[in-house]
Amino acid sequence: MNEKKTSFASDYEEGAHHTIISNLNRTNLLKTAGFGQDEFSEAARKKIRDACKTSEADISFMVGGTQANFVVISALLKSYEGVIAADSGHINFREAGAIEATGHKVLTLPHVDGKILAGDVKLFVEDFYANELHEHMSVPGMVYISQPTEYGTLYTLEELRKLSTVCREKNLALYVDGARLAYALAYPRNNVTLKNLCELADAFTIGGTKCGAFFGEAVVTRKNLIPHFTTIIRQHGALLAKGRILGVQFYTLFTDDLYMKIGRRAIDTADKIRDEIKKQGFELYVDTPTNLIFVTMTETQARKLSEHIAFRTWEKLPPDKVVVRLATSWATKDNEVEVLLNELRRLKFV
Amino acid sequence: MNEKKTSFASDYEEGAHHTIISNLNRTNLLKTAGFGQDEFSEAARKKIRDACKTSEADISFMVGGTQANFVVISALLKSYEGVIAADSGHINFREAGAIEATGHKVLTLPHVDGKILAGDVKLFVEDFYANELHEHMSVPGMVYISQPTEYGTLYTLEELRKLSTVCREKNLALYVDGARLAYALAYPRNNVTLKNLCELADAFTIGGTKCGAFFGEAVVTRKNLIPHFTTIIRQHGALLAKGRILGVQFYTLFTDDLYMKIGRRAIDTADKIRDEIKKQGFELYVDTPTNLIFVTMTETQARKLSEHIAFRTWEKLPPDKVVVRLATSWATKDNEVEVLLNELRRLKFV
Amino acid sequence: MNEKKTSFASDYEEGAHHTIISNLNRTNLLKTAGFGQDEFSEAARKKIRDACKTSEADISFMVGGTQANFVVISALLKSYEGVIAADSGHINFREAGAIEATGHKVLTLPHVDGKILAGDVKLFVEDFYANELHEHMSVPGMVYISQPTEYGTLYTLEELRKLSTVCREKNLALYVDGARLAYALAYPRNNVTLKNLCELADAFTIGGTKCGAFFGEAVVTRKNLIPHFTTIIRQHGALLAKGRILGVQFYTLFTDDLYMKIGRRAIDTADKIRDEIKKQGFELYVDTPTNLIFVTMTETQARKLSEHIAFRTWEKLPPDKVVVRLATSWATKDNEVEVLLNELRRLKFV
Amino acid sequence: MNEKKTSFASDYEEGAHHTIISNLNRTNLLKTAGFGQDEFSEAARKKIRDACKTSEADISFMVGGTQANFVVISALLKSYEGVIAADSGHINFREAGAIEATGHKVLTLPHVDGKILAGDVKLFVEDFYANELHEHMSVPGMVYISQPTEYGTLYTLEELRKLSTVCREKNLALYVDGARLAYALAYPRNNVTLKNLCELADAFTIGGTKCGAFFGEAVVTRKNLIPHFTTIIRQHGALLAKGRILGVQFYTLFTDDLYMKIGRRAIDTADKIRDEIKKQGFELYVDTPTNLIFVTMTETQARKLSEHIAFRTWEKLPPDKVVVRLATSWATKDNEVEVLLNELRRLKFV
Repeated sequence: MNEKKTSFASDYEEGAHHTIISNLNRTNLLKTAGFGQDEFSEAARKKIRDACKTSEADISFMVGGTQANFVVISALLKSYEGVIAADSGHINFREAGAIEATGHKVLTLPHVDGKILAGDVKLFVEDFYANELHEHMSVPGMVYISQPTEYGTLYTLEELRKLSTVCREKNLALYVDGARLAYALAYPRNNVTLKNLCELADAFTIGGTKCGAFFGEAVVTRKNLIPHFTTIIRQHGALLAKGRILGVQFYTLFTDDLYMKIGRRAIDTADKIRDEIKKQGFELYVDTPTNLIFVTMTETQARKLSEHIAFRTWEKLPPDKVVVRLATSWATKDNEVEVLLNELRRLKFV
Repeated sequence: MNEKKTSFASDYEEGAHHTIISNLNRTNLLKTAGFGQDEFSEAARKKIRDACKTSEADISFMVGGTQANFVVISALLKSYEGVIAADSGHINFREAGAIEATGHKVLTLPHVDGKILAGDVKLFVEDFYANELHEHMSVPGMVYISQPTEYGTLYTLEELRKLSTVCREKNLALYVDGARLAYALAYPRNNVTLKNLCELADAFTIGGTKCGAFFGEAVVTRKNLIPHFTTIIRQHGALLAKGRILGVQFYTLFTDDLYMKIGRRAIDTADKIRDEIKKQGFELYVDTPTNLIFVTMTETQARKLSEHIAFRTWEKLPPDKVVVRLATSWATKDNEVEVLLNELRRLKFV
Repeated sequence: MNEKKTSFASDYEEGAHHTIISNLNRTNLLKTAGFGQDEFSEAARKKIRDACKTSEADISFMVGGTQANFVVISALLKSYEGVIAADSGHINFREAGAIEATGHKVLTLPHVDGKILAGDVKLFVEDFYANELHEHMSVPGMVYISQPTEYGTLYTLEELRKLSTVCREKNLALYVDGARLAYALAYPRNNVTLKNLCELADAFTIGGTKCGAFFGEAVVTRKNLIPHFTTIIRQHGALLAKGRILGVQFYTLFTDDLYMKIGRRAIDTADKIRDEIKKQGFELYVDTPTNLIFVTMTETQARKLSEHIAFRTWEKLPPDKVVVRLATSWATKDNEVEVLLNELRRLKFV
Repeated sequence: MNEKKTSFASDYEEGAHHTIISNLNRTNLLKTAGFGQDEFSEAARKKIRDACKTSEADISFMVGGTQANFVVISALLKSYEGVIAADSGHINFREAGAIEATGHKVLTLPHVDGKILAGDVKLFVEDFYANELHEHMSVPGMVYISQPTEYGTLYTLEELRKLSTVCREKNLALYVDGARLAYALAYPRNNVTLKNLCELADAFTIGGTKCGAFFGEAVVTRKNLIPHFTTIIRQHGALLAKGRILGVQFYTLFTDDLYMKIGRRAIDTADKIRDEIKKQGFELYVDTPTNLIFVTMTETQARKLSEHIAFRTWEKLPPDKVVVRLATSWATKDNEVEVLLNELRRLKFV
């Protein structure tokens, strides 16, 4: 972390939204039961159920996204099943083989702007069962998607419905990784609500870590879907002793629309940056509506940009271009944006 | 959690020591790298190395004790090895089969006040290799102990040295679960220092969760002992994205002797309670020097006590007695102790 | 293997019963489908179903006992469940941690002559659910027993019924390891039939390896109990490409009562040896009705015996005695028995 | 298995070469130690070491190919490592997720006629370490190839040397799946010998199942490469109790050049078929030198062919073609070839 650089490297570079700190402080000396059986966690569950407009959801809190992903996925898969995911999916290339470490194969489909299509899933499963040797292959048991995707794109309600329909037809669980869900929900033209996720997916997460909390993911599962889930969570070291800390954080995020405000702030900032990028004639590698920006530039430009701005190099585009990923967050400051915009303006002349 | 009861149920019922909150708040908006590569984590590592009086230790931070245990144990064991532990050991009966979920057998020895003896380990391993069919059995690869133990007792330096010697002779790794280490270190007559642990064990943890932090365990491993440890931690979902939060907490705990002060406060309180227990003629099931108190009483007395005091029923002693576990912490208040002492005085007449 | 010794070390020291070899030879050049879908396997399944007097059983063939055990057990357990077994159970100490390698804890009960009692299972499960922290513990999901046990003893029908009843009450699967089942079935006063096993257990094995085959275990499971079982078997490398070889062997074993004859021959031989043991005043450590003989003698006697006889030293009985295990088989020759009896007679004078 | 069809569906449709049966019969009543410690296994190991022209190889016998693959691969990989394989590799799509079930990711590279190229491996590993987030990814720890490949093709000595060099530079183990190795070794222009495999790979298998044995794979590993390998094999249920049966089979295969003769016979037969295929103007999808033949035809032709010939449909080539795989073996009879050739001749008119 070079402190002289202005960073757009990720959306988890700061601590937590100040309301969270203040609520942790305020409740600090109250005694509570451990392991998520405290009243703050219970209150947070209620808040989330209300936001989902359902009483038919079980809610558990875990510390991190990789953890939530492998715990839920391994809980839902049978030992002989694999999980279908985009090749760009977080579980496929960023979680150090966590899914495989629980014994399951990740069955990859080529992504389309980070998404997988209902039709491709259908075809994959039909080809599987048509294969005369399919008893010698990992059985597709689940579909993993992320909303927003790793490319910052969003499934539309129609796309999600189609996926969900295929999943139900083909007896696949549908799991939505919402590590950055705030940035989907807060996008003005997003039409996939929490309620839709409850109805269309078997399980999904509401990310805290990348959306204003110190840490934490709320895992929403269809009521009674996973028996003995507490034991499963415990077995994977994912049951926080002082579960209250997760409870307080999610209670706060789902009070006074804070989660939406956090998401909106990051999107507005990202929009401002995207505008300048277009104005300066750079190409957006993917035209995303959320807090992640993917811009194509030459390697020389990227090197120049890196002198003052921290970002992530997402992909190489041989021979001489790269995709630069810039991330905004609830905490991105106006003057940081100014520094970035100025650098972008300068890049034209590189 | 019945709020009307005064609780001595565990040492993780409150949030965090106020200095931790204050430091989290103070550093909140600084941007840092993720995954433990931030400057706060680095500073905390230095503080801990200083407390250990060594530069030859690698330090990683994880969120919880079960997590730290299975990540370290599975990282140190070969696929065909098991871990020797007391039958009362936390990994054997309180972690939902987490060790087995990573593929390893827990090889139990009968505990003596929560401890296992060097001689028993030696005998176990020699019997193993003497067995003509030992190639058909889990190979003992490691010894797990806890300091303090689940019974609140402590290994003396001499006991630990003997265990360590046997381990080295028999080619076993030695791992010390220090989930409550503050309460060992702060015991006035304790003679096992952090430096001793560095020298005698291959890996040990310094517990935060039960010793004043919101959460977190510092994992101390012999330098370069575990290659690719970051990947291993990541694979198990144990690499906190905002590692800074662990860094800030452990930095705080190891500044101005806070960790020792937290431990000492709980022990002093526990001593006061133990004195009254003896005075009232109750029997201590184990005479512990730390923050856990195990007292034998009749079931009737335990039921009576439970009307006003929350505690844990540790064991049944048929026909009609039980072992009651009372836990103090850094946050136990004087008036809570008063309520407990009064209840204990009353119990005589039950 | 010292060829000068007469061996009673195990019941798998020879190849296969000559009828098996002859049938393998006879069918050798016929072409069949692979992976157990051949007509010999199908015919063998029918033979076994007939012997079980049921059409409601699925039958799979695997190569070995450890393999069959962990494949079936892991297929029947949920990820958070453990399997209850006698501490003397084969899966607990002879299979190199195979069960744990599939992620499950073996929950041990003290054995009584190799058996576990229905009452102990009941108590164990009730204690489990009574434990206030049971969500932090491996959930008992199954009972593993062996018939005959590792100590050569047999469950009576009444004992098995009681176990089965407890299992159903407590929602536990019941699995019977029949690696030496021929020696149970052929015991004249045995009252547990294959039909009983079908009714009372969820799954059991019919051992071939130790009962006259080159190798192979028939796994009998309640109809449709395990979906995608072929894939599960394949995943564990337990699906023999030329499944026909297992088919031919089990077809042969279940034709003309060969399996019973093989068992009976070994028991008759063992009875003769047991008679002499008693006559010579040695103590049977366990008075078994099957092909395994456990006799207590001094270490000096055992050493003397080992000069001419190969056996297994089963247990040490400090200070100076040992338990010697002698095994007979379908292939034990009369002159081998004579050598053993003579040695036993000589031992008195040692 | 439609008995009216002449089958070229696989190379494991018959039992075993008659010399194997005869030797199993001849040794049947000799008593031996179990678990591969018998004299037949020892003699077989010596035969194989001689064929490899080395004394520096450890040799273990396992029952099947999937079993050998996952046992060796999981024994050689660290918990955080994955294995690089062609996307067409047997471990990737035909073993029901066996590798993943042991906790490891299969890292796929696009195949070139079933092979992977040294340059692609090099690039993959270099890209991995160049990735700024590589600590969040499965570490490449091994390369898996098969000789012959699943497409019946062969690595040349030069290709293998290059792969081996890259593996050593990049600290990757190299494992060669030789399930059909006889068909590589017996190819007249093959220049990769057993000695080369010993020198260039860390481990490889010599397949019995598909090359004339009832079953069995000899696993050759660099001397002392895998400590406690017997326990590892046992843990996976892969240690045959009557190991002698594997010993006798491999002893037979490596006596009087039987393994080569078996391979040669199948290749000669396949050559005859390939000649007719070319003569009839069909296209070989891959021009293979071994016992597997891949021929492209229209779906209509394939359907017609399937009326009298059993084969495997390997791939679809939209819109209307398919790849038909025909396999010969040591046991393919001349009149079967005649039937096939006649059918091929007829197909032209379809």
